[in-house]
Amino acid sequence: MRMSALKPLPSIYYPDFIAANQSDRANNVLPGTDKWAHLEKIQADIRDFKLVNSLDKVIVIWTANTERFADIIPGVNDTADNLISAVKNSHSEVSPSTIFALASILEGTPFINGSPQNTFVPGCVEFAEKHRVYIGGDDFKSGQTKIKSVLVDFLVNAGIKPLSITSYNHLGNNDGKNLSAPQQFRSKEISKSNVVDDMVAANNILYKKGEHPDHVVVIKYVPAVGDSKRALDEYVSEIFMGGRNTISLYNTCEDSLLASPLILDLVLITELMTRIEYKTEGMDSFAPFHSVLSILSYMLKAPMVPPGTPVVNALSKQRSAIENIFRACLGLDPQNDMLLEAKAFH
Amino acid sequence: MRMSALKPLPSIYYPDFIAANQSDRANNVLPGTDKWAHLEKIQADIRDFKLVNSLDKVIVIWTANTERFADIIPGVNDTADNLISAVKNSHSEVSPSTIFALASILEGTPFINGSPQNTFVPGCVEFAEKHRVYIGGDDFKSGQTKIKSVLVDFLVNAGIKPLSITSYNHLGNNDGKNLSAPQQFRSKEISKSNVVDDMVAANNILYKKGEHPDHVVVIKYVPAVGDSKRALDEYVSEIFMGGRNTISLYNTCEDSLLASPLILDLVLITELMTRIEYKTEGMDSFAPFHSVLSILSYMLKAPMVPPGTPVVNALSKQRSAIENIFRACLGLDPQNDMLLEAKAFH
Amino acid sequence: MRMSALKPLPSIYYPDFIAANQSDRANNVLPGTDKWAHLEKIQADIRDFKLVNSLDKVIVIWTANTERFADIIPGVNDTADNLISAVKNSHSEVSPSTIFALASILEGTPFINGSPQNTFVPGCVEFAEKHRVYIGGDDFKSGQTKIKSVLVDFLVNAGIKPLSITSYNHLGNNDGKNLSAPQQFRSKEISKSNVVDDMVAANNILYKKGEHPDHVVVIKYVPAVGDSKRALDEYVSEIFMGGRNTISLYNTCEDSLLASPLILDLVLITELMTRIEYKTEGMDSFAPFHSVLSILSYMLKAPMVPPGTPVVNALSKQRSAIENIFRACLGLDPQNDMLLEAKAFH
Amino acid sequence: MRMSALKPLPSIYYPDFIAANQSDRANNVLPGTDKWAHLEKIQADIRDFKLVNSLDKVIVIWTANTERFADIIPGVNDTADNLISAVKNSHSEVSPSTIFALASILEGTPFINGSPQNTFVPGCVEFAEKHRVYIGGDDFKSGQTKIKSVLVDFLVNAGIKPLSITSYNHLGNNDGKNLSAPQQFRSKEISKSNVVDDMVAANNILYKKGEHPDHVVVIKYVPAVGDSKRALDEYVSEIFMGGRNTISLYNTCEDSLLASPLILDLVLITELMTRIEYKTEGMDSFAPFHSVLSILSYMLKAPMVPPGTPVVNALSKQRSAIENIFRACLGLDPQNDMLLEAKAFH
Repeated sequence: MRMSALKPLPSIYYPDFIAANQSDRANNVLPGTDKWAHLEKIQADIRDFKLVNSLDKVIVIWTANTERFADIIPGVNDTADNLISAVKNSHSEVSPSTIFALASILEGTPFINGSPQNTFVPGCVEFAEKHRVYIGGDDFKSGQTKIKSVLVDFLVNAGIKPLSITSYNHLGNNDGKNLSAPQQFRSKEISKSNVVDDMVAANNILYKKGEHPDHVVVIKYVPAVGDSKRALDEYVSEIFMGGRNTISLYNTCEDSLLASPLILDLVLITELMTRIEYKTEGMDSFAPFHSVLSILSYMLKAPMVPPGTPVVNALSKQRSAIENIFRACLGLDPQNDMLLEAKAFH
Repeated sequence: MRMSALKPLPSIYYPDFIAANQSDRANNVLPGTDKWAHLEKIQADIRDFKLVNSLDKVIVIWTANTERFADIIPGVNDTADNLISAVKNSHSEVSPSTIFALASILEGTPFINGSPQNTFVPGCVEFAEKHRVYIGGDDFKSGQTKIKSVLVDFLVNAGIKPLSITSYNHLGNNDGKNLSAPQQFRSKEISKSNVVDDMVAANNILYKKGEHPDHVVVIKYVPAVGDSKRALDEYVSEIFMGGRNTISLYNTCEDSLLASPLILDLVLITELMTRIEYKTEGMDSFAPFHSVLSILSYMLKAPMVPPGTPVVNALSKQRSAIENIFRACLGLDPQNDMLLEAKAFH
Repeated sequence: MRMSALKPLPSIYYPDFIAANQSDRANNVLPGTDKWAHLEKIQADIRDFKLVNSLDKVIVIWTANTERFADIIPGVNDTADNLISAVKNSHSEVSPSTIFALASILEGTPFINGSPQNTFVPGCVEFAEKHRVYIGGDDFKSGQTKIKSVLVDFLVNAGIKPLSITSYNHLGNNDGKNLSAPQQFRSKEISKSNVVDDMVAANNILYKKGEHPDHVVVIKYVPAVGDSKRALDEYVSEIFMGGRNTISLYNTCEDSLLASPLILDLVLITELMTRIEYKTEGMDSFAPFHSVLSILSYMLKAPMVPPGTPVVNALSKQRSAIENIFRACLGLDPQNDMLLEAKAFH
Repeated sequence: MRMSALKPLPSIYYPDFIAANQSDRANNVLPGTDKWAHLEKIQADIRDFKLVNSLDKVIVIWTANTERFADIIPGVNDTADNLISAVKNSHSEVSPSTIFALASILEGTPFINGSPQNTFVPGCVEFAEKHRVYIGGDDFKSGQTKIKSVLVDFLVNAGIKPLSITSYNHLGNNDGKNLSAPQQFRSKEISKSNVVDDMVAANNILYKKGEHPDHVVVIKYVPAVGDSKRALDEYVSEIFMGGRNTISLYNTCEDSLLASPLILDLVLITELMTRIEYKTEGMDSFAPFHSVLSILSYMLKAPMVPPGTPVVNALSKQRSAIENIFRACLGLDPQNDMLLEAKAFH
């Protein structure tokens, strides 16, 4: 497979959607306020890029700064049709990232959202389903959240009951500056805080219905550390006979160096998925995967799944899904780790 | 199921096998130096215990202090027959824990070794196989090693390449005092240091053949912390473009409170295994599991497996083995995490 | 010296000054809204306590929850006379702790503020000076701030230049619950954040005028940890040739157990100061210390000093002040650490 | 003041004094086994260096690898005369660093030992005293030990009683490789472990006579971290009513970048001391400082002091000594931190 050089698309600058203190850094900006014109310009850019580089396929990934959450408003972004009308009316609650997603979908180009905001408002998901184009998101899972999903999965499965999970982060790059604005932080906080929910809910021996650990997430902008993001976490768990196990973790993550390989993997796996059809029990014929590509969960902090299906945050299960689907492509059985043949007398 | 009250067996005191500074704490000691007499005494104790408590089954678990490693000597402990002769001759290289194991096997009683020493010399394993009695070991996996097997599995699988793993421990209980003797520490060091080997060896993209991370394990006796064992670990990993990810972890483990549930689980699972037979591809008829119970790996630091079969240290795979074998007992397919039905359009 | 049993005074409940979520825990409350009546009631309580216990002296210490900051309003709390009028008019911006302070001063009773809010508005300080009664504050220095003042003093003095100081705290006691309200947290944040200012300003080789390290302070309410306050700090410093030194610190502070001895020390030292007069160069006659007792700085997070005099946050200097003043009381020279006699040939 | 370019002297290679695994890195080696010839060669080198660079003064600092401890043998290195004879006889227990020290002293050149071994055997100290040449040592205090002397001083002075101090280090540079040999590590361990003794002994309220905290020091060679030395420390202390305060500290020290400024400071202060004479109470006339320069303690891990005088490890007192001696040179009173003028009413 040949990969073309990566190309950054121009950004759309709607001041309301990014942190005020970011405006001085905004460049490569599309002019005007006509949202439909913006959408068409991005479509044109994708087509040009394909043509100029003689490409068969393009995949678009949003790696730009975190936007604030868009309000979900009935009649505006709740259905595919309403959303398209809202873009045509340049409605104020249509975010730049949603316009990119819609433009990509119209071009038949998969779109992955690597930031935490709700690019995929309900109307946008419906639009992708209608066009049978792959979408995936949200938010690159590069550091603290990834380890959290590993540790909590381990603790809960081992019968060690987390009572509190306290996560502190600071970083000094542009992402950190942007997140120091309350509305943008809110987007991030949401994407980071659901990560333990399904693991806790799945264990009704340790946790009563509705019970969950204290969970705090803090992100601070500390210019001195630059791109070398720091994560300080504490896990306090209840063990046998009321005892306490305490884990304190200090993690120095080079933010960009952890995120970049995820971008490559997201592109490669998404592209591969465009070439796979399958048929499992209850299906009449071979079909592609659902537009919402849940197989990408391993790389994403707040993994999107097809509406109505369960979210899986346990990292080992997310990875196992990838491994076993790839095995199936080769005609291999899924890994079951039983090693029964090795457990018998010979 | 009814469980009888737990009963500690008397210990055998061979000064050469325990740390010199432990001798003042040795009590409940069997008299004499006749090793075969000791073996028969323990057999009698097991029978009495069964009788007095009207039990169907007994499971013996070694939770005593770490012994030094026994030397493996041809003609002494290399085969079942030689080992029995060595006991009869009170050979100096037969350790107390091996005598317990042999006595248990002769009584048809499963024996689990919760300490790191090599109780299961080759002759002992052969003896268990001959009598078709279950054995399992070695060394309860309660704290630092458990998390290490989780984190290294995660890192290596995510393409984050550990370059060094530095593990420091200190504790102030009897176990700590005993391990402060060099020979006993050597046993522990061996049981703790192999934990990453198979994970590293399995990934020949990250590691060249023979390459492995620097791996240091230190255990110190610090009376002031008592049973509240402290683990301080550092993982330095290479990431994209030569960058470094560094994790420093401080873990306060209440040693006994983490180990006790493992003892219960080891007993319960071992007992269950005595009631299961299976038949998989290539087998002619239903048969019990191999005498070396590798399904117990999840609870053990240096998991024993049937001779010639692969050791699995990745904690999630060890747990998956238990889960899927139990599912099979109920007639359920193994978990494959693919969730294919949820990934389709409906 | 005989110390009477400690006695908690009744509290004054002005809802605006405490966190909304604390109201359910307020008990032992003085009725009514007449602020002057409250002041007189507290005076009466102090007198009664003295009488009933046959005491020579009483010292009052505020250990109650953090209040929000009072606004400093010209004509209301800027001078002693205005402040007394404001109390008589039950002005809304007079806080409960200020009423306690005024009542104490009128009784000739020293008053120490162990919480971070600005009890000592300018009018209150002037009132204490007029009555020559000792006041001291603010905020018990028990944990993270104390170590910070030690470490930053060390680093800056060693030529290791802190670039960022990031301090995260969480606790689950009543204090934590109260501080989870933004206005109360603001009080705390201010008391904690000035601690490095004088040390940085004093070193104009490391820091240019106006330059200072990034300094972040976060406090979170995490019920699961109870009174066992956790502090996670990171210090990133610039060293030789642009290198970086990084210290990450995890501190488990039993909040009440660290604060209680400070209360005892504050009482004992304050009482002692009521019995000392001194005369130094430029003074005509012996005189007591200034009403604002800066010798208490060692125990207080945001140490108050007489108006117009320098604040000292370096813990070793604060302690040295106590030590040398006590030495002077015994007629000893101050410690100068030169040990010149030991450095000579003999 | 003009400083000449630094010049490394050739090394003396006595295999017995350095770690076996270092031999492959030894270069720039003086030939032969005649120890007196080595001494004279180093004298000649110092003289040549002075001449070639037109220098007034030279200061020699040992920054080479740690040697093993030399045995103190009556008749060999216990007196100045015996030591000189031992060099002339090429006695096996005269270490390379001691030969450097003696050569320097004979040239009237101050000699500082920046490594932990006992270069300054009793005969060497006597030799320096006889020739009135300055010597200072031992072991650059750059990282973990420095912070330990700060924290323990703080804790003990605040009435927080350390029960255990557990210090783990690892590094991957040449120093780390050398220290991985047991005999060299022993030198280091001794230099690091006395640091808390005087602070503990000085506080007979917290510690009974003979009582001291558990103190463990570990150093490991971990090539992957290179020169970026890691220190992981835990301090467990007893507080009010039997409570426990626990501090866990993770410190990334760039070893060379922390040590280099110490080398400069040691040279500058030592040179300055060659130009100062003083007269204090009980002295008849002005005299230079004792040959053992205890003012250098601030920069040295196991500070040497004149025989029979007290060792001070508290870092703030060590720094205070420098500050006040320099103040005295300017005719200023020592700092006493009382700020009495600021504490009075004006």
